[in-house]
Amino acid sequence: MPERIYNFSPGPATLPYEVLQEASRDVLNFRDKGIGILEISHRSKEFSEVIQEAEADLRELMDIPDDYYVLFLQGGASTQFAMVPMNLLMPDKKGAYLNTGTWAKKAIKEAKTIAKVQVAYSSEDSSFDHVPTDDQYDVDEDAEYLYFVSNNTIYGTQFHKFPEKGKMLVSDMSSDILSRRFDIRPFGLIFAGAQKNMGPAGVTVVIVRKDLVNRAPENLSTMFKYKTHAEKGSMFNTPPCFSIYCVGRVLKWLKAKGGVDAIEKINREKAKILYDAIDNSDFYKGHARPDSRSFMNVTFNLPTPELEKKFVEEAEKEGLSGLKGHRSIGGIRASIYNAFPVKGVEELVEFMKEFERKNG
Amino acid sequence: MPERIYNFSPGPATLPYEVLQEASRDVLNFRDKGIGILEISHRSKEFSEVIQEAEADLRELMDIPDDYYVLFLQGGASTQFAMVPMNLLMPDKKGAYLNTGTWAKKAIKEAKTIAKVQVAYSSEDSSFDHVPTDDQYDVDEDAEYLYFVSNNTIYGTQFHKFPEKGKMLVSDMSSDILSRRFDIRPFGLIFAGAQKNMGPAGVTVVIVRKDLVNRAPENLSTMFKYKTHAEKGSMFNTPPCFSIYCVGRVLKWLKAKGGVDAIEKINREKAKILYDAIDNSDFYKGHARPDSRSFMNVTFNLPTPELEKKFVEEAEKEGLSGLKGHRSIGGIRASIYNAFPVKGVEELVEFMKEFERKNG
Repeated sequence: MPERIYNFSPGPATLPYEVLQEASRDVLNFRDKGIGILEISHRSKEFSEVIQEAEADLRELMDIPDDYYVLFLQGGASTQFAMVPMNLLMPDKKGAYLNTGTWAKKAIKEAKTIAKVQVAYSSEDSSFDHVPTDDQYDVDEDAEYLYFVSNNTIYGTQFHKFPEKGKMLVSDMSSDILSRRFDIRPFGLIFAGAQKNMGPAGVTVVIVRKDLVNRAPENLSTMFKYKTHAEKGSMFNTPPCFSIYCVGRVLKWLKAKGGVDAIEKINREKAKILYDAIDNSDFYKGHARPDSRSFMNVTFNLPTPELEKKFVEEAEKEGLSGLKGHRSIGGIRASIYNAFPVKGVEELVEFMKEFERKNG
Repeated sequence: MPERIYNFSPGPATLPYEVLQEASRDVLNFRDKGIGILEISHRSKEFSEVIQEAEADLRELMDIPDDYYVLFLQGGASTQFAMVPMNLLMPDKKGAYLNTGTWAKKAIKEAKTIAKVQVAYSSEDSSFDHVPTDDQYDVDEDAEYLYFVSNNTIYGTQFHKFPEKGKMLVSDMSSDILSRRFDIRPFGLIFAGAQKNMGPAGVTVVIVRKDLVNRAPENLSTMFKYKTHAEKGSMFNTPPCFSIYCVGRVLKWLKAKGGVDAIEKINREKAKILYDAIDNSDFYKGHARPDSRSFMNVTFNLPTPELEKKFVEEAEKEGLSGLKGHRSIGGIRASIYNAFPVKGVEELVEFMKEFERKNG
């Protein structure tokens, strides 16, 4: 293994090295077939097995009931911002949204061009430093769903208790899918770009209750209907084969690790190490309110922007990479998804202590 | 190098082995940064260079003028079937289409749900065995563009002379982009899924005249507007990074080969070897009319479906893979894109002769 840096990037993010080794081998020669994984036909027996196993493993890991489809689509979460209301609200139904950050805002903006929208709550006035509890908002009775972003990558907040309001839930789980156990039943639809907890960029997983795919208006473009992809097992057209293959490998890795319960324990441990370091210091200050703190993206500030810049630069030299906060809030962000090793978090904490000693 | 089969698959298709070797290395450690190409942030300096170089190399290879955008999108050609009329025809303009096969038909069907459509020509009555010449059809004066599929993968036909009718051309070049030199100026828009001549599945290249991206209606969803992607250099949201990286490597390979002129010569040579073998035999019968024959997908029949089945099975055993014709027309299809080696074509011809001798 070449010397690996610790990659705190918010996504595309670090992947298990075992998965990279498998991919590196399979790109040249897949299952000893004399053909690489990038070159095999999506209609081949080999690729059918790849996509079917990925689906089966995701179902097992997340305990997805049979009355939900699992789809592997393209276009990222940004495409889902439109597809969700197109399929579930068109032509004139209403969706309720919780505005807890940039990605929620974008979803709201998109939905407004397509259907009716109720913004049931917004934490924008306090720099999106928290997510709401159910007693803080109401959902209109005629809203078809309540949409929320389970983890807000940019601000470092996360729902630790999911909403229990509205007819059904819809969630963008791009940055914390598979990081913890939860019950899918209250959800009509969940989507997630792969490039944080599931694999490389290029594929979006959509988990949708089967009855919902029939709601789309007939004249909606074929590719934007969930039904199209549901009926063809995500193979209506050529899927993003390699990204799906990688997701499959990551799911196998997660199963070998002990599954979602095991990784949740590790995720809590990693987050605690970092938040403890922040809380035990007057030099570092967490952005998110403690009750809304994300276990995936830990955001904090230093006394000045100059010190933050220096922190990022010096960390980079120590092999602690990608710590610069999102341009919209600045500061520091450590993204510690499933595949991020505990040791990297420990090294960051050591670096933080050392940096504070020198600059505090 | 492990023993490689000859992969005649129509796409995802064979890639240059040198590209696979580079990808195999870079998946583990990209540019010695201690981080794999699948893991690097799309906002990093490294990835910016990857996408910018890919664009520059494509512009150089295809001689794309400055007044065209080059976009790297997701969703495949099937998404373009909707995006083209959404961006260029909405709400009530007309597009003219040449119906020369399955992919043209799908594009027509999609466009009809979005705008007005003139089907100016159809070769469906003769099993799509040819493409038209300009004297065989008229384009309505109020049609904004004339849409055609430059190469019909399934039927093995290809336009050897592009149409010179209509206000501007729009073309699906998924299966023959970069296979030959042509002048882009008459085109308003060209799109191509990467998985035949450019790389693996998961990215679609769109080349669009700059003025055209402003035609889209304001309320079109953000992700479906070319303008969104044009303004952000294909980085409005997380792009399919690895597929774009691979396209970049394939473009470097093509440049090293001598570019489009050099590969066109090789493509003509490969096609001639195969068509000569067909023409010099009474056993094999080409599907496409000689003047419409594709240099990318060579389609032919044997005397009976049983013999065709036997042919495919025995070829497979000899390491000549993926020769089964598309289910809609049956028979044999040999896809011989840019990266397919001359030697593989020669071996197929040897096999054909041998098979005829034994079964003829």
